[in-house]
Amino acid sequence: MSIKQIGFADTELTGGFLSHIEKLNKDVTIGAVYDRFNETGRVKAFSCTWKEGEPNRPHIFWDSDVAKWIEGASYVLAKHPDEDLTAKIESVIDDIEKNQWDDGYVNSYYTTIEPQNRFTVRGNHELYCCGHLIEAAVAYYEATGRDRFLKIMMKYADLVDRIFRVEKSAAFQTPGHEEIEIALFRLYRCTKLEKYLTLAKFFVDMRGSNELDKPIAGGIYGLYQQDVPPREAREAVGHSVRACYFYASMADYALETGDEEIAESCRQIWNDIATSKMYISGGIGSTCYGEAFTVPYDLPPESAYTETCAGIALIYFSQRMFLLEKDAKYADVIERLLYNGVISGLSISGDCFFYENPLEINLRNHYKIKATSNQIRLPITQRVKVFGCSCCPPNLNRLLASVGDYLYAADGDEIYVNQFAKSSAKANGIEIRTETDYPFSGRVSISAPGASKIHVRIPGWCTGFTASGQYTVENGYAVFFSDSATVDFDIPVSIVSSDSRVWDNSGKVAVIRGPVVYCAEGADNNAVDFHMLSLSPASAKDAAVLQAGPSGLPEIEIDACMKLPANGGKLYYPAERSEYAPFKLHMIPYYSFANRGEDDMLVWFNER
Amino acid sequence: MSIKQIGFADTELTGGFLSHIEKLNKDVTIGAVYDRFNETGRVKAFSCTWKEGEPNRPHIFWDSDVAKWIEGASYVLAKHPDEDLTAKIESVIDDIEKNQWDDGYVNSYYTTIEPQNRFTVRGNHELYCCGHLIEAAVAYYEATGRDRFLKIMMKYADLVDRIFRVEKSAAFQTPGHEEIEIALFRLYRCTKLEKYLTLAKFFVDMRGSNELDKPIAGGIYGLYQQDVPPREAREAVGHSVRACYFYASMADYALETGDEEIAESCRQIWNDIATSKMYISGGIGSTCYGEAFTVPYDLPPESAYTETCAGIALIYFSQRMFLLEKDAKYADVIERLLYNGVISGLSISGDCFFYENPLEINLRNHYKIKATSNQIRLPITQRVKVFGCSCCPPNLNRLLASVGDYLYAADGDEIYVNQFAKSSAKANGIEIRTETDYPFSGRVSISAPGASKIHVRIPGWCTGFTASGQYTVENGYAVFFSDSATVDFDIPVSIVSSDSRVWDNSGKVAVIRGPVVYCAEGADNNAVDFHMLSLSPASAKDAAVLQAGPSGLPEIEIDACMKLPANGGKLYYPAERSEYAPFKLHMIPYYSFANRGEDDMLVWFNER
Repeated sequence: MSIKQIGFADTELTGGFLSHIEKLNKDVTIGAVYDRFNETGRVKAFSCTWKEGEPNRPHIFWDSDVAKWIEGASYVLAKHPDEDLTAKIESVIDDIEKNQWDDGYVNSYYTTIEPQNRFTVRGNHELYCCGHLIEAAVAYYEATGRDRFLKIMMKYADLVDRIFRVEKSAAFQTPGHEEIEIALFRLYRCTKLEKYLTLAKFFVDMRGSNELDKPIAGGIYGLYQQDVPPREAREAVGHSVRACYFYASMADYALETGDEEIAESCRQIWNDIATSKMYISGGIGSTCYGEAFTVPYDLPPESAYTETCAGIALIYFSQRMFLLEKDAKYADVIERLLYNGVISGLSISGDCFFYENPLEINLRNHYKIKATSNQIRLPITQRVKVFGCSCCPPNLNRLLASVGDYLYAADGDEIYVNQFAKSSAKANGIEIRTETDYPFSGRVSISAPGASKIHVRIPGWCTGFTASGQYTVENGYAVFFSDSATVDFDIPVSIVSSDSRVWDNSGKVAVIRGPVVYCAEGADNNAVDFHMLSLSPASAKDAAVLQAGPSGLPEIEIDACMKLPANGGKLYYPAERSEYAPFKLHMIPYYSFANRGEDDMLVWFNER
Repeated sequence: MSIKQIGFADTELTGGFLSHIEKLNKDVTIGAVYDRFNETGRVKAFSCTWKEGEPNRPHIFWDSDVAKWIEGASYVLAKHPDEDLTAKIESVIDDIEKNQWDDGYVNSYYTTIEPQNRFTVRGNHELYCCGHLIEAAVAYYEATGRDRFLKIMMKYADLVDRIFRVEKSAAFQTPGHEEIEIALFRLYRCTKLEKYLTLAKFFVDMRGSNELDKPIAGGIYGLYQQDVPPREAREAVGHSVRACYFYASMADYALETGDEEIAESCRQIWNDIATSKMYISGGIGSTCYGEAFTVPYDLPPESAYTETCAGIALIYFSQRMFLLEKDAKYADVIERLLYNGVISGLSISGDCFFYENPLEINLRNHYKIKATSNQIRLPITQRVKVFGCSCCPPNLNRLLASVGDYLYAADGDEIYVNQFAKSSAKANGIEIRTETDYPFSGRVSISAPGASKIHVRIPGWCTGFTASGQYTVENGYAVFFSDSATVDFDIPVSIVSSDSRVWDNSGKVAVIRGPVVYCAEGADNNAVDFHMLSLSPASAKDAAVLQAGPSGLPEIEIDACMKLPANGGKLYYPAERSEYAPFKLHMIPYYSFANRGEDDMLVWFNER
C-alpha cells in the first residue's frame, strides 16, 4: 500500500481557523465570485452568442475562471447539496454541451470569436482552459455522480490527444500556460484510462524538448519552464503559477510512475523555492514582470508580487511532494500559505480579493511612485471584488472548499497528521478525531483507534514540545506507535530572521506566533512611521497575546523601540546621538491587513 | 561694504584634494570633454552647415554643452594662458559670430534645422542655451579681456529682452529649463547695465505667475518650479537641476535687490533640501522620473538619481545663500558636494563621467531588474566618456576650474574661510594664506595680516575642536578677532545615522571621516555580500585610517559583523539563532567608487 491523502470529502472540520475559512468560502465567497462572473459576462460567454459591439467580449481565459468556480462549487456540493448551486453549474454545462464541436472541442472564446484559429497561438491559454474544465468536470462528477460534464471533457481530452500527441497538427506542442498536465493526471486517476496518463506524461516530457515551442515573451525569468527538459530542471523559474502547476504535474508523474529522475527534479526545485525564493508568508513569485520567480534571495517586501494563485499552486505542488516523500517540510509550507500568504488574498468579509500580496505598504512611497512614474508597478493597497484577470478568486473557491484535503493522510493503518484543527476523518476503516484549539494553543490530541502509528507533524516554526507517550522523530514527524497521541507544541511569540542572503530583509526581523505571521498597521499604532521602529529578539518573551480580532486569530502587543527624528532637523548626525523612545507595537495577523481602509503595513522591522 | 566671495582668479590652491581636482580638470578633463564634443559634432554644429542625411544632427541642447565647456576653459585660461585652448574657443566664437542673426539671435539648432520655429516651444532649451552662452561669454571676457563674444551675447540678450519682456511676442513667457536667470544677473554684474537686471528679475517674477506657460510634462514632481510664484515657494520641487539654477537666481535677486520676500523663499527652500531631500553625498533629485525632487525623506540609495549637474547647481545655490546669510551651513553643503556627490561624477582618470550618482550598487539586484523589466531604470554602474545628453561633463569643467571660488570670502577686512586647503588669496588688500593637509588632518592655520576678524567655518561633521587664541562662535563660524588663527578639528572616523524619517536608511549607518563619506566595494572585501554586514557605532573608535589610495584621500578599515547564512538552509528561523562572524571592512572614499570595473558598492550598512 502507498500513502494517500484523506480527502476533504472524508474529513470534517468542526472548529478553528481552517473550518472558519472553509465556511466563509461556502457561505460568502462562492456566491460572490459567481455573481461577479455573472455580471461581467463570464458565465454567459459559454452560450457563445456574443456579437461584435456588445459589452463583455469573451476573453481567452474566461473559461478557466468559471471552471475553477465550478470546481470549488462542486467541492461545496459534495458535502452540502444545494439546488441553486447545482442549477447554476448545470446551466453552464448545458451551454458547454450545446457548443461543443463535433470533434469534441470546447472553448467559448475561440468558438465565439475566431473558430478558424484554434490551436494556433500557444500563448492563448487554450489548453489551460481545457485543463481547468477537466478538473471541474472531475470534481463535479466526484461530488455528484453526474457524468455528463465528465464525458464532454473526456471527448475534448481525446481530441487534444489526437491533435497534439498523435497527429502533432497544432501550431505548438505544449501549453503556453501549464495546467492541463495536472488535469490529465487527475482525469486518469478518476477514469483509470491509460490514455490520459499517456497524454499527461507526453505534455510533461515534451516541455523544453521540442523544436516547435518558442520561448514566450517575459524576460529571462519568464522562460516558462522550458529552458531545460523537466528531468534536468533544478531551479524554479519563470511565471510562478505556471511553474508550480507544472511542478505539481511533475510530482504527479513521479507518483504515478515511480520515475526517479522526475522525482529528483521535483525535490530540487521544491528545495530551491523553500530555501531561497519564498516569502515568510509562503508567497512566491517576487516580480510583477512576468509574474515570475527571479534569482535566489530576491524577496522585496513592498513590490512583492506573490500572486494568490501562485501560493495555491505551491500548495498543490507541496501536497504531492508530501505524498512522494512523506516529509513534514512539505506540510510546513502548506501551513505557511494557509495561515498567511494565500488567505491574505481574501478579505475578512469573504468577497474581496488581492491578486498580489505585498509584505509592506508604505503609503508615502506608494504615492510618490505613482506620482513620479507610471512605469513602476506596486501592488494595489485594497482588495477588490473582481479583476480583469480574475484567476485568484475562483482559485480560492476551490482551495478553501477542499482545505480538508491537507489535514490527514493514511498509509495503510499509519496515520499522518499534517494540519491541526478540531476535526474528524476516516480512512481505511480508521476513524480519526483531533481535539485542539490550534493555533490559540499548541495542544493537539489525536485519537485513531486501530491505527498502528500516528505521525504528527512537528511544525517547522516549533522549537520545543512535550508529548504524552513514546515517540520517535522521523522526517519531521513525531511518530507515535499507538493509536492516540497528545502533543503540546510551545507556541510563544517569536522573532524570526531571514537567511542573511535575503538582501531586502538584511538587518530585519519579523514576528510570528506558531504558523501565524504578524504585521502592523497604522490604524492600530497611531499612524506611526513604522520605519522608525525596531524590535529586539529579547522583547518576544514579554509580548502579550491578545484576544482574537476580526481575523479570528490572536493579536499581539510587543515592545518596540522608536528612533526619534533628529533634533534640530539635522539629516545626518553621529549615530551615538540617536534618541529612542519605547513604543507599544500592536500587531495583527498578516493575512488580515488592509481590511480597514488604506494604511501603512509592515512585516519586517529593523532589528535592534 | 558687503560680503563678496574671493574668486578663483584671486585664489591659489597650492596643495591638497581641491587643488588635485582643479589640476586634473585642467590637465585632463577640459581636453577630454572638448575631444568628445568635437567627435560627436557638437563643436561643428556652431557652423550651422549640417545637412539632412549627415551624421551628428544638431540637438536643441548642444549649444549649452559647448558653452559650459567654454566657460570652464575660460577659467583655466584666466590663470594658465594657452594658445591652443584660446584658438579652440575663438573658432567657436567665429562660427557664432558668422551665424548670429541680424536681430541678434544665436542658436545652432534652430538656425540650422528649423529657423522658422524659434521661440515657439518652451521645452526646447532655447533660453537655457542662451543663458549658458551668456555665462561663457562673460567668463571668456573676464578671463581674457576679449569682448567679441560678450558683445554677441549682449546683442542676443537685448533681443530676448525685446521678444519676452517688451513685446511678449514669444509663444511662452519663461524658460522651460531655467538658467538664463543666473546668466542675466551675471551679465548685469559684468556690464553694470540695469536692463539685464530688469530682464533677470522679470524672468524670476513671471515664473508661475503668467497665463502663457503651461506645465511641462513630468508628473506632479515635475512641476518645474511654476506651481507657485517664487515669493510663495517654500519647498524644492521638480527637476532638480532646473530647480537649483532657478533658486540660485532667486538668491541673486535677493542679493542684488535686498528683496526680503524672495530671500525668505530661498531660505525655506534651501532648508527643505538640506533637512529632507539631500543624500549624505550632497546629491539631490532622488527620482529619475522627471530627474526630480520628490517628497521629504525619500532618499533611495540604489535608484538615486542625484545628477552630477544637480549637485553643481546646489553648490551655486548654496554659495549665493552663504553670501546672503553668512551662515556656515551653506558652505557645509558645498563641502559635502565637493568631496562626495559632485566629484563622484568624475573618474579618477579624469575623462569618464557619471550622470547619476547612486549610493548603492547591488549587482544581483541590478541584473535581476535589467532582466525582468526594461521599465525600471537603475543608474549605470560604470562611468562613460560622453552621454547623449552630456550636460554633466562640461559642468564639471566649469565647476572644477573655478573651485577656488569656494574657499574664501571677504566682508571689508573680515575674512571668511569656508573650505580648507593649502592656498593663498587676496582681497581688499589683505593677503590670506592657509596651511593645512585637510582632510588628512583637521589642523588648519590661517594668516591674513591686516584682517580684523577671521571667520573659520566649523564643519557640520565636526563634534569637537581646539583653537589657538580667543574666538566666539557665530553662525557656525569660529570668529577670531585677530589676523591669524589655528584650529584643530577632531577628525575621527565617525558612524552617522540619518533622520529616522528617511525610510530607506532606517536601521542603517554610514561611515564618514571629516567631509569624506566612505563606501565599500567588493574588490576590497573578497566580494562579500554587503547586506550580510552590520556596523556598530562603537567600532568607529578602533577604525584604522590608512594611506591615501588612488582617490587621493585616506582609506579606512573598520570592524564589521557578518551574519552568516542560516545553518541547514532554513530561510526563516528564530532570530536568536543567528550566527555572526567578525569581518574587517575596507572602505574607500565614496566618490571614488566604480573605478576598478563593475562591482557591488554600499554606503549605508545595517546598524548593530
